[in-house]
Amino acid sequence: MDINDAIKNTTIFSDLEDHELEYILDIIKEKQFKNGEIIMQEGESGDTMYIMVRGEVEVSKNLTMKFGEEEYRSTEKILSRITSKDHAVFGEMALIGKENRSASIIARSDCALLEICREDFINLVKTRPETGVKILLRLCELLAERLRKSDQDVIRLTTALSIALSK
Amino acid sequence: MDINDAIKNTTIFSDLEDHELEYILDIIKEKQFKNGEIIMQEGESGDTMYIMVRGEVEVSKNLTMKFGEEEYRSTEKILSRITSKDHAVFGEMALIGKENRSASIIARSDCALLEICREDFINLVKTRPETGVKILLRLCELLAERLRKSDQDVIRLTTALSIALSK
Repeated sequence: MDINDAIKNTTIFSDLEDHELEYILDIIKEKQFKNGEIIMQEGESGDTMYIMVRGEVEVSKNLTMKFGEEEYRSTEKILSRITSKDHAVFGEMALIGKENRSASIIARSDCALLEICREDFINLVKTRPETGVKILLRLCELLAERLRKSDQDVIRLTTALSIALSK
Repeated sequence: MDINDAIKNTTIFSDLEDHELEYILDIIKEKQFKNGEIIMQEGESGDTMYIMVRGEVEVSKNLTMKFGEEEYRSTEKILSRITSKDHAVFGEMALIGKENRSASIIARSDCALLEICREDFINLVKTRPETGVKILLRLCELLAERLRKSDQDVIRLTTALSIALSK
């Protein structure tokens, strides 16, 4: 997959015309990560979003779990593996606000990614508002979809907890 | 609080200039709900967002919980109460996609609300893209904030479940 295809296939840019894709090309940087390298570290501040072009990454989160009688352990829970075939973006929450990373991302093969930083992104949507509206509507959709999934997990876990506690 | 103040104090419109607030006034409808009336029903489709002007509402979600040995009951969990002082919006996910309501909202006093429907909203952000970008950036922020909270709940519940299961 080349850079143009990677951008076109990215959900938040999928409504853009060819000439608008040029604006995106102007602000992206190509980044290479080696197998095993940390791309994003949970809890650290960040102002970049990534688009996968080639390779595979692992998404994980730190959890405190109880093992046996009295032992609490901090453990790394692997949430998912993402390949370039998924046309995935990650770190997109950093584009709109200064917040710490909500998960870690580690390269599980040699990876080629495209990086967009908040300042360039905000500048683009403000100076090219017609393009900006198309991108932001898709970004809202993406965030709403993730919120729905997370809310469903809260419901499932609450039910599971009530079952566990009633035993 | 009057309608102008309610709109100005709404987070997703907080970046708008006075003349841009006129565009919002053009697409809002005033709605009255009596104490006890259902404003939104979880699971039903909807294409409207609401802004509180006066009154108090209750947000609730349906949960399946286990009681005692073998009994499963569907129960209504009250998530929060919102008053007009909170400058709250709800149903905002309906503005960007066709999805069912993720929670129920019931009036807990006589309420005055402002209603905006998806078609008018999308039309506004597309025909006034400079205003649209300001609104959509704030909407992204709101969704990202809710996603962060929901993700934290998932982490807490997963930890609690591991504790409950290790007993």
